[in-house]
Amino acid sequence: MGQTTIKDVARRAGFSFQTVSLVLNHPEKVARTTRATIEAAMRDLDFVPSLAARALRKKPSRSIACVSCLGPETADDGSDPLPETDPGLVLQAFAQVTDQHGYTLIHRRCRSDDPGSPARIASLVSEARVDGLVVFAERRDDPLIALLQAKRFPFVVFGLDVPGAHCAVRADRDAVHEAVAYLARTGSRAIGFLKGDGRRLHTASERFRGYRDALAEAGLPPRDDLVVPCDWTSGGGYRATLDLLDRSARPDAIVAADDRVAFGVLKALHDRVVAVPGAIRVVGFDNLAQGAYAIPSLTSIAVPTLAMVRFAFATLAAVIAGTRAPDDLARALFPTRLVLRESTATRTP
Amino acid sequence: MGQTTIKDVARRAGFSFQTVSLVLNHPEKVARTTRATIEAAMRDLDFVPSLAARALRKKPSRSIACVSCLGPETADDGSDPLPETDPGLVLQAFAQVTDQHGYTLIHRRCRSDDPGSPARIASLVSEARVDGLVVFAERRDDPLIALLQAKRFPFVVFGLDVPGAHCAVRADRDAVHEAVAYLARTGSRAIGFLKGDGRRLHTASERFRGYRDALAEAGLPPRDDLVVPCDWTSGGGYRATLDLLDRSARPDAIVAADDRVAFGVLKALHDRVVAVPGAIRVVGFDNLAQGAYAIPSLTSIAVPTLAMVRFAFATLAAVIAGTRAPDDLARALFPTRLVLRESTATRTP
Repeated sequence: MGQTTIKDVARRAGFSFQTVSLVLNHPEKVARTTRATIEAAMRDLDFVPSLAARALRKKPSRSIACVSCLGPETADDGSDPLPETDPGLVLQAFAQVTDQHGYTLIHRRCRSDDPGSPARIASLVSEARVDGLVVFAERRDDPLIALLQAKRFPFVVFGLDVPGAHCAVRADRDAVHEAVAYLARTGSRAIGFLKGDGRRLHTASERFRGYRDALAEAGLPPRDDLVVPCDWTSGGGYRATLDLLDRSARPDAIVAADDRVAFGVLKALHDRVVAVPGAIRVVGFDNLAQGAYAIPSLTSIAVPTLAMVRFAFATLAAVIAGTRAPDDLARALFPTRLVLRESTATRTP
Repeated sequence: MGQTTIKDVARRAGFSFQTVSLVLNHPEKVARTTRATIEAAMRDLDFVPSLAARALRKKPSRSIACVSCLGPETADDGSDPLPETDPGLVLQAFAQVTDQHGYTLIHRRCRSDDPGSPARIASLVSEARVDGLVVFAERRDDPLIALLQAKRFPFVVFGLDVPGAHCAVRADRDAVHEAVAYLARTGSRAIGFLKGDGRRLHTASERFRGYRDALAEAGLPPRDDLVVPCDWTSGGGYRATLDLLDRSARPDAIVAADDRVAFGVLKALHDRVVAVPGAIRVVGFDNLAQGAYAIPSLTSIAVPTLAMVRFAFATLAAVIAGTRAPDDLARALFPTRLVLRESTATRTP
């Protein structure tokens, strides 16, 4: 059974479809009793007005919004120094791509601890200030995603795999799987994992799945004694590594939640005079420019950020233009690349 | 003599000030000969219509735009990996502050190699899509600044000191002056300088002034043989340091253009087995979170980014609201802080 349309509502209510359309677009122009009858028919049929279709009839704004979803756990106390997080880099890439296509880029934040926040973001579309949204969600069940789906607004999720939505997905599981398989194949036997904590929980658990699956496939036992939660900062990596070194079993390799965490790992190992890669090998994630100049230079996982941004923008532009049906989902998994550097060099071949 | 007003124009042309206002706002509603007379009076009096005042009479958009000015020298070939630059961090801070005040943040780029680019940015204000602009300029003579001044649009310059404009200025000269004075006072005699090249020329020359002035005040001779241009990346710092080490005179300290450059300096010194801080001391700029975890941890200059962002936003909001006259310039110099770490430690006190 297909989607209920405005014509179904008109038939049920006994009015013309123009009158139903008027209820949707200018309810103040419709007699109160007529409106009540039509609204009842909409409820009976579970009719959801397609605001994407409504937006099409308006003049397009040629603007899109990038929305960063912040969980209640994200500190926002305005304290210096600013955290050095990836969204800044991804936003710059969106600025570049929207600019090349003559679009204006709006940036908004959505706070899950503020119940009115998702509705205010959605109002950007209903007020025709933007044509569509790119959502940087940290969780699949973010309330903004549910709201945008219910209203049938044009949007694309960036990073995560969210069922039923267009998305540009980073292959988090496969990426860590490849790194751990490489370490196991080249001699590491006690591979530790620093699991990002507090925020980006879905990303952290996908990366952890890659770690555990790769250990199993390499015939290595799970090493829960070598898995340490840490926040997504160099300080978190530093403290987690000192914690790991004080345990009875020592790892011979550490896979860090990301590059920033890995910089803290390298510093902790240096301070404790543990040789890298001689005694412990280290892998990061994101392939930040600075990793090539870490001491030792850092093996990491390169993410095709610009390709993901281009895909997300092209998908959103097609949905906005009506050349891609909202139900014809564009879902792409972007493979990563393991970049080998000094921090995982093997002793002698 | 004050600014020519709409009333001066009306008196000169012999029409009411309402008619002059109509010429400014709806010229198509005014008879052709009347319009010609009034426009001639405007030219005679060098009258510049205040678009800020016009915007006040429109419904405010409660949106501001952050505009990154890109010089022709800025590569924009869309190649991966993305450069890790500060604008991303500053943009995040603006997103946070505008969000707290219920403003929408728009991000646009202005390319100086595209002659139509400044006009397209300015049209954001004239079409009332934004109420004002924050301009991240790399040069004082950026054409966008001249255009915004000519049109009397509300704007604030971020980072640079631009005469005649509201600005939040980073104390680049004083910051490097303090660092070099500290090095000289604690025993360094041959202080080298890696001078950022290619872009951010004004910032680079302000920092270089601080370096040269501090040497002179410490009674040290200028050391042009220890000044090396380099691009604003870790790779640039790495190559410039190797270049410096191959010269006949060796520095006993290096002041890098910024922290990213300094990470490359540390790597080059490590690869050439030069002890830091034993043989050469190193200073960066920006106090990035990762500097505390560099090997050795990096002495750097902390910039009060969030305070600068708050000042720029508050100034712009006041100009937009009309509570600050456009000619009452808000110009603040934000002092920095030297953060001492291992890379400049002195041998024995």
